[in-house]
Amino acid sequence: MLQEDRLFPIEPTARSIARSLYETVRTLPIVSPHGHTDPRWYAENAPFPDPAQLFVVPDHYVFRMLCSQGIPLTALGVPRVDGGPTETDGRKIWRLFAENFHLFRGTPSRLWVEQSFADVFGLTKRFSAETADEFYDHIQDCLARPEFRPRALFERFGIEVIATTESPLDDLEWHEMIRQSGWSGRVVTAYRPDPVVDPEFEGFRSNIERFGELAGTDATTWEGYLEAHRIRRAFFKSYGATSSDHGHPTARTEDLSQAEAAALFEKALAGRCTPEEADAFRGHMLTEMARMSLDDGLVLQIHPGSWRNHSAGVMATHGRDKGFDIPTRTDYVRALKPLLDAVGMRPELTVILFTLDETSYSRELAPLAGAYPALKLGPAWWFFDSAEGMRRFRELTTETAGFYNTVGFNDDTRAFCSIPARHDVARRVDCAYLATLVATGRLDEDEAFEVAHDLAYKLAKTAYRL
Amino acid sequence: MLQEDRLFPIEPTARSIARSLYETVRTLPIVSPHGHTDPRWYAENAPFPDPAQLFVVPDHYVFRMLCSQGIPLTALGVPRVDGGPTETDGRKIWRLFAENFHLFRGTPSRLWVEQSFADVFGLTKRFSAETADEFYDHIQDCLARPEFRPRALFERFGIEVIATTESPLDDLEWHEMIRQSGWSGRVVTAYRPDPVVDPEFEGFRSNIERFGELAGTDATTWEGYLEAHRIRRAFFKSYGATSSDHGHPTARTEDLSQAEAAALFEKALAGRCTPEEADAFRGHMLTEMARMSLDDGLVLQIHPGSWRNHSAGVMATHGRDKGFDIPTRTDYVRALKPLLDAVGMRPELTVILFTLDETSYSRELAPLAGAYPALKLGPAWWFFDSAEGMRRFRELTTETAGFYNTVGFNDDTRAFCSIPARHDVARRVDCAYLATLVATGRLDEDEAFEVAHDLAYKLAKTAYRL
Amino acid sequence: MLQEDRLFPIEPTARSIARSLYETVRTLPIVSPHGHTDPRWYAENAPFPDPAQLFVVPDHYVFRMLCSQGIPLTALGVPRVDGGPTETDGRKIWRLFAENFHLFRGTPSRLWVEQSFADVFGLTKRFSAETADEFYDHIQDCLARPEFRPRALFERFGIEVIATTESPLDDLEWHEMIRQSGWSGRVVTAYRPDPVVDPEFEGFRSNIERFGELAGTDATTWEGYLEAHRIRRAFFKSYGATSSDHGHPTARTEDLSQAEAAALFEKALAGRCTPEEADAFRGHMLTEMARMSLDDGLVLQIHPGSWRNHSAGVMATHGRDKGFDIPTRTDYVRALKPLLDAVGMRPELTVILFTLDETSYSRELAPLAGAYPALKLGPAWWFFDSAEGMRRFRELTTETAGFYNTVGFNDDTRAFCSIPARHDVARRVDCAYLATLVATGRLDEDEAFEVAHDLAYKLAKTAYRL
Repeated sequence: MLQEDRLFPIEPTARSIARSLYETVRTLPIVSPHGHTDPRWYAENAPFPDPAQLFVVPDHYVFRMLCSQGIPLTALGVPRVDGGPTETDGRKIWRLFAENFHLFRGTPSRLWVEQSFADVFGLTKRFSAETADEFYDHIQDCLARPEFRPRALFERFGIEVIATTESPLDDLEWHEMIRQSGWSGRVVTAYRPDPVVDPEFEGFRSNIERFGELAGTDATTWEGYLEAHRIRRAFFKSYGATSSDHGHPTARTEDLSQAEAAALFEKALAGRCTPEEADAFRGHMLTEMARMSLDDGLVLQIHPGSWRNHSAGVMATHGRDKGFDIPTRTDYVRALKPLLDAVGMRPELTVILFTLDETSYSRELAPLAGAYPALKLGPAWWFFDSAEGMRRFRELTTETAGFYNTVGFNDDTRAFCSIPARHDVARRVDCAYLATLVATGRLDEDEAFEVAHDLAYKLAKTAYRL
Repeated sequence: MLQEDRLFPIEPTARSIARSLYETVRTLPIVSPHGHTDPRWYAENAPFPDPAQLFVVPDHYVFRMLCSQGIPLTALGVPRVDGGPTETDGRKIWRLFAENFHLFRGTPSRLWVEQSFADVFGLTKRFSAETADEFYDHIQDCLARPEFRPRALFERFGIEVIATTESPLDDLEWHEMIRQSGWSGRVVTAYRPDPVVDPEFEGFRSNIERFGELAGTDATTWEGYLEAHRIRRAFFKSYGATSSDHGHPTARTEDLSQAEAAALFEKALAGRCTPEEADAFRGHMLTEMARMSLDDGLVLQIHPGSWRNHSAGVMATHGRDKGFDIPTRTDYVRALKPLLDAVGMRPELTVILFTLDETSYSRELAPLAGAYPALKLGPAWWFFDSAEGMRRFRELTTETAGFYNTVGFNDDTRAFCSIPARHDVARRVDCAYLATLVATGRLDEDEAFEVAHDLAYKLAKTAYRL
Repeated sequence: MLQEDRLFPIEPTARSIARSLYETVRTLPIVSPHGHTDPRWYAENAPFPDPAQLFVVPDHYVFRMLCSQGIPLTALGVPRVDGGPTETDGRKIWRLFAENFHLFRGTPSRLWVEQSFADVFGLTKRFSAETADEFYDHIQDCLARPEFRPRALFERFGIEVIATTESPLDDLEWHEMIRQSGWSGRVVTAYRPDPVVDPEFEGFRSNIERFGELAGTDATTWEGYLEAHRIRRAFFKSYGATSSDHGHPTARTEDLSQAEAAALFEKALAGRCTPEEADAFRGHMLTEMARMSLDDGLVLQIHPGSWRNHSAGVMATHGRDKGFDIPTRTDYVRALKPLLDAVGMRPELTVILFTLDETSYSRELAPLAGAYPALKLGPAWWFFDSAEGMRRFRELTTETAGFYNTVGFNDDTRAFCSIPARHDVARRVDCAYLATLVATGRLDEDEAFEVAHDLAYKLAKTAYRL
């Protein structure tokens, strides 16, 4: 069903330019510098269990849409916190998905799923109630074959490097196992320290104690705590990490005195932080992380603005990450000033900003990234990782920040089979945008070829230092 | 002057797809589930008075634009609160309208008025100072004829069902008169309880007393008050109501304990609510209304975010609804959480959200409606009921919420003759959007025909349970 | 390199309409009612110093982009507050600019610079490291010739009238010198009273004293202060001023009693205003300015929403206006109410609103301007003075406010050579928008020609009373 020229401009002249651009980037290796695939897949290289476990159960884009139309999460196999009953019959889940596939019309999930069906499994019929079983059986058969194991797919997808995301409390055993295996696939980790920088995280004090143990230092003093970060960052770097990753509720930063920070840390350890103090501590830690980045070169990623686990009911029944993270209005201009005053003019630092609030693209993010040497803009993300979302990102940021204050695409996904499709959509949309610039006299065609290559490949490598 | 292909994509391939789609929905019956036409028109079926009274005086889209360029509202026949002098000569008002018709270039009012002139009255010349009298005389002649009376137009417009909006203090006499008349036109009411849920509404206490009288219960106790709502909702249902309608300043909801709610209600009755308490009470009542909807099936409509009667001077001289309601920034994510935690996961409930803050489409509304079973998105509304406004609505909501978490079009109008034109504009814009999806490989053409039908007809019927 | 049809729609039918429209406005005289060119240029008519001093050093659009990629401001010749070393070799600066010109791909600066090179200096090669010296030498040669002096360029650019911006503390000596010279070029001033209306401005009290001296009145009393404004406004009017200009951090207005205002003024003079009181005073002064405008006819311009000098480091090293002014979220609906309640319904008053927060276009600004007779919308501005920015401005404001509540284009620039290019871009984008309306049946072609002329020329003249 997939059109060869999908997502290109409709007008023939511009379409032709887009097609030419795309042909030069279509098969470039995939650089995936930020994502959430499970390193265990690459370590164990076991077969994926069944089509529903591959396409529905782990993908909150998919099951939240089905849920929004009244299909219970339990009917889709989403696990319960209490271990209570949830659908385990993959075929039943699959049929529900197929019967309701019309809900995805016009969504990027539709594109990703169809392209995965076609390119990964060779399935080119329309997915529907009628073809559900045929698809299920075919995919099930494939998954049993060696060429559909994680490492084989990784290679077939043309992944040059992929980053996973781990907590400083993680011992990186799967990354170690990958290394030991001698497999040539490049899988790197990223340092995501929420459990040890957020005083409101479950078990903060015991996290800090464990953190100190892992680092071999007493992390319950402010100096020891900072030292533990330095040690664990170095450990993560030894497993290929080139970035840290920070998903706070807001973009707030602080640049407190060391005495103030130490006092807050002490309160946090004692569980006596007010919400405001916890927020200030998180904000201060971003500036500390940025200072460490000046020393160790890790790229600092900030993606604020998600109200996590918005539904109290879903959180109670199914826990985190179940499609109920909702974007909120996000301020950057005031929020980032302490960090920027501290380190924003340092060109050797790279801070990558993401947003779930598109109103900040032209008003805040592009003007900030178009001035501060340390700032770069992450790609359109999450709800905006879509044809229209990526078009708006370019239209709203390029005129102020240009292309070279952006960092290429990242897929940010847990849905392994969708990775090539996601990069393909991004490459198509960027080529469409460039073709429009060329066709309207805003960019010369030879330059567009260079920019297309930069957006598809080079910027991600250089910005993330991969 | 009207182009056959107006509002379709310009590129010929996409235009051709849009035209094909549109041909299949062009003459579908009009389902108008939310609007403000006067039920008295259908009850009495009297002739409309004159062209100015039909096109200018009641249409705040029209007279506010003329006012914005310095034409006094009194010169346009807009009534004064003090009964003081205002223009009564329809022809004089009409000429002012015609002389300044260039002000409407590029606005939806221009499209609606021109299409009404052409399709309802057969007037296809350009409307201007030169043709003002010719148009006036022709429309005046038409209005005297039986085929231009309200019921005849209702039938000619192909209206399958239209909803009006009444307060619980309304005795629905016009609806009763329609019923008694035996006329087959389907006119239903909707339950809009502002005078009895807003402690800051003029005469709140006496409203509540009257409310109790109409319901046959003592509405001055919290329990009696809730019971009065149940009784009046049932009464409204008996006149066809399938929805309630809530236009609060913000989207704030609360889910207070019954004791807290009762205490607030007591304060409200005594006129002792602070603005914060009044706001909390209104917010709590949305959750109570949602609970009643679970019992009686009425669809709950929330359209917050208008700063009503922004000009103190216009409010003093001319009163409410005079074109000076201005949109404000509106939060949904925090505001709706209490209601959503209470009832948001119930698939048998339908809550329809409207907005006057377009920034919420992609950031808040689509993510919420794309997750919570109870939520659906109302169409682009009021200032955004326009070609660009509706395009933005689709582009900003579809990728996250899909089509099936939206509810089709509603015209929301007092301007009777514009109803077919408004639905026609919506159908054209939706077909243009679908054609673009098809031409860019995001939707198959056969699916687009199904979706076009859904958007033009079926979604409104099913979402509003009509 | 410049395409003849740049910025027009790509589809041939619409492109052809756009081209026809553009041909009728392409060579219209330039009306530049708001800008920041230096009146000294026109007064002295001395040669511009060198290419870097013309294109790089004074243009914060240019040097902030270079800075954002790690090039130090000092390497670009941007002066230091402490008079410390900064690059003075124009050719070195120029080479840095040329080597990094790819950073401007997709930005309006690229278009302006290329069009200035081509149209002003006849340079049509691509600007790059390879051609840097050739361009430098050629421009340097040109600048030495009489036909490249400011007055000659002014005439060649077809500038009918240009406004500069001065403080009430300015004696307008350059304007006087222009007048004395007998040159026929029309250069008018505009009244920008920040130093005497902002209690937080450096040296506020001494500014007020100087203000009184210039006005010949005691400006340290509230009545004398208001009188000084009246006197200086009249003085500015005598040098052609038709507008005042107000760039507060927010759009806040107040309409205090005279006693309250006088008390705040006394506190301001004594340096005892809290930030909140200083803000209230600024807000009140907007309403006072509007009242004076009712008397003397000056148009009142409000452009709020910039966080000035965001980087503490850059402010300390290089001072104000160095590309680190960042837009912020801006409210108009609540903020303007006091002023609007006081004078908003007066059609003889013109208040022009600008924004750096695009979210306010459709939500706040168009609804306000589409209702209040005194309000008009300034053009897309600063970060939004670009192809996409101007397109969004039209798409987001026209349907609610129409064309006639907007005021045409202004270039707002210090970059003299870019003035024709900036107006050309605006004319092209407006013609593209109009062509799209015509091609989609929203405007008749003959009307589009009239509107194109209005947008390119007439609206600026009439709105600014020039």
